[in-house]
Amino acid sequence: MTAPSHTTLSIELDGQPSRHPIVIGKGLLAHCAELIETHLCNQGPPPKRLLLVTDQTVAPLYGTAMQAQLEAHGCQVASVILPGGETNKTLAGMAALFEAAEAFEFKRNDAVIALGGGIIGDMAGFFAASILRGVRLIQVPTSLLAQVDSSVGGKTGVNHHRLKNWIGAFYQPHLVIIDPDTITSLPEREIGCGLAEIAKYGFIQDSIGTETKINVLETVSTPSFRQALNIDWVSLIASCCQLKAAVVQADAKETSGHRALLNFGHTFGHAYETLLNHRLNHGEAVAIGMADALFVAAQLNMIDPSLAEKGIDLLRQLDLPTTPPEPIDTGSMVAAMGQDKKNRSGQAITLVLPVKSLGRVQLADPIEKERLMALLDQRRLN
Amino acid sequence: MTAPSHTTLSIELDGQPSRHPIVIGKGLLAHCAELIETHLCNQGPPPKRLLLVTDQTVAPLYGTAMQAQLEAHGCQVASVILPGGETNKTLAGMAALFEAAEAFEFKRNDAVIALGGGIIGDMAGFFAASILRGVRLIQVPTSLLAQVDSSVGGKTGVNHHRLKNWIGAFYQPHLVIIDPDTITSLPEREIGCGLAEIAKYGFIQDSIGTETKINVLETVSTPSFRQALNIDWVSLIASCCQLKAAVVQADAKETSGHRALLNFGHTFGHAYETLLNHRLNHGEAVAIGMADALFVAAQLNMIDPSLAEKGIDLLRQLDLPTTPPEPIDTGSMVAAMGQDKKNRSGQAITLVLPVKSLGRVQLADPIEKERLMALLDQRRLN
Repeated sequence: MTAPSHTTLSIELDGQPSRHPIVIGKGLLAHCAELIETHLCNQGPPPKRLLLVTDQTVAPLYGTAMQAQLEAHGCQVASVILPGGETNKTLAGMAALFEAAEAFEFKRNDAVIALGGGIIGDMAGFFAASILRGVRLIQVPTSLLAQVDSSVGGKTGVNHHRLKNWIGAFYQPHLVIIDPDTITSLPEREIGCGLAEIAKYGFIQDSIGTETKINVLETVSTPSFRQALNIDWVSLIASCCQLKAAVVQADAKETSGHRALLNFGHTFGHAYETLLNHRLNHGEAVAIGMADALFVAAQLNMIDPSLAEKGIDLLRQLDLPTTPPEPIDTGSMVAAMGQDKKNRSGQAITLVLPVKSLGRVQLADPIEKERLMALLDQRRLN
Repeated sequence: MTAPSHTTLSIELDGQPSRHPIVIGKGLLAHCAELIETHLCNQGPPPKRLLLVTDQTVAPLYGTAMQAQLEAHGCQVASVILPGGETNKTLAGMAALFEAAEAFEFKRNDAVIALGGGIIGDMAGFFAASILRGVRLIQVPTSLLAQVDSSVGGKTGVNHHRLKNWIGAFYQPHLVIIDPDTITSLPEREIGCGLAEIAKYGFIQDSIGTETKINVLETVSTPSFRQALNIDWVSLIASCCQLKAAVVQADAKETSGHRALLNFGHTFGHAYETLLNHRLNHGEAVAIGMADALFVAAQLNMIDPSLAEKGIDLLRQLDLPTTPPEPIDTGSMVAAMGQDKKNRSGQAITLVLPVKSLGRVQLADPIEKERLMALLDQRRLN
């Protein structure tokens, strides 16, 4: 059995000796065993013992079949099915993984497969980074968001109370397998979540300094899009991964600030997620955050108000929210934004804001908390 | 106030952009604030907010004074005093650190100080590696063992049930401060623990491929040594650190096998620690393990029996145990050795064994478990 036609991206990161391929193609999920054997042969023989980490939603859809496929290929597989959901994404929630690994007598040559959305990728990734101080990791993202976002960059981790991703590691996967066919099994809200992140690449792509460009805003804002879902997902996902890779390659460990561009909309977004206790999904929170950022940039004369409005309109065309579902006290909002780990100083908030045109952003000068509160109050009145 | 005369080693590791100095000198503990300011200025300004991690034994001896010193220097400091002991070195035991960091509103520019022995270094190191996906870490080892061993190499982590250091990270400290004056406050058993590790460097140094050599066996086996403690600790510790650095530089992440040389005596040693439920300290367990390795190597004709006996005698002269304090079933012993994370295959045990002369070791061919049991049985009869 040969894997169907697919696109392979090679991501090379400074200070990381290994390239880790991202393989993207329709129907690849049924060919993971071969892909693992083909691509994981640089550091010793390919793994024959695998710990498959997934969640209760994904297990019946793809997990059982994946385990059977790997076993038919001669691998020994143990599956760990996590409860799923952001509230389980904690250090305590990691314990189930280490217990399962102990029962499996997990060894250094064995590998971890993360099969699921971003939460599974984050937890299984941090697990693979930490067990035996690091073992081979295969990311198989099944949500659109994870496919365009967390498959590149190596961020892994868990939450600590309300502090999102506060505990974790930078850990590059050894292989990423993306099968866009999984998108059809996603609830509409989940697809929207991915679309928000894709729209983000559109809002930041001209600042990335790479030739890769996607007409992402045009593609995803076609009115028939949400119904049809018949676009070239492989190309779109590949472009998003390339854009992200270009940023990450320049700043793998988030030290130079360049990587901060990827956080367009996220400082607001994380605060919404915190304050609304995860009533919003990540993409919805980020969509509202991007709308906030567009508004704030216009108020600060960084971008023409009509362009800001056009950007917010694009988000609406994607059926994404652009205002929070309930009124939020701006004081609490700014306080929550100050908890964001990107904000080093306690006095002001540093934001990635659009500048001059849609498609271009920059890390703006820190904004005093008082000033930001006033701007947000003004937006609520709009 | 200027720091007293001291030796500074610069350790550079492949794939790690930053050099991290190891500063060794008598009386340096009272000068940590200046040393931090001097040495931690490469990645932005030196930290002004520090989380000081220590344990209940070290806190009254050095922790309180350290906090006062840093505060007098204008730093904001929160101390976390862990219970200490190997049983608290778990993922659950890490929670106290993250809770304290949350209360401190720990930010990316803040730093972690690990003040204590190996357990504190391992836990605070893994904490620094994980919080916000990695912040600056200053190791201030106060035990002789930690000074000659864990201060170089970047291994951090916690235990999982009986699996030692099963969860962790490779994370290089940004600065190591070693003050040999702390040795005087150690109980005699703790000093022995360090001596065992120093003896290990003597047993492996000719295999390391560096010019640095120490007459460690002669130095530490002087009969008056344990009473007098009046040797040149700065030089001895510096030499041990250099020997370890030479190994680690060639194999930072334990992928080539070269780093395995450091595990001379440790596969046996970890098994003793596991089976005797930590009745032995690490050095004692390793000392017995080194004696076992010498015996096994002689049985396998890798080294002359009289040399093996000479090596075991040297350990005895250091008042270190060379046989377990109670009879241990060899089957359980070999099973526990198979749990060691260095042993990739389940069928045989890979050991670092002396070869040809004292001072030279190699990663020997895997030994079948049955064969190893027979050899250990023979040793018990000796």
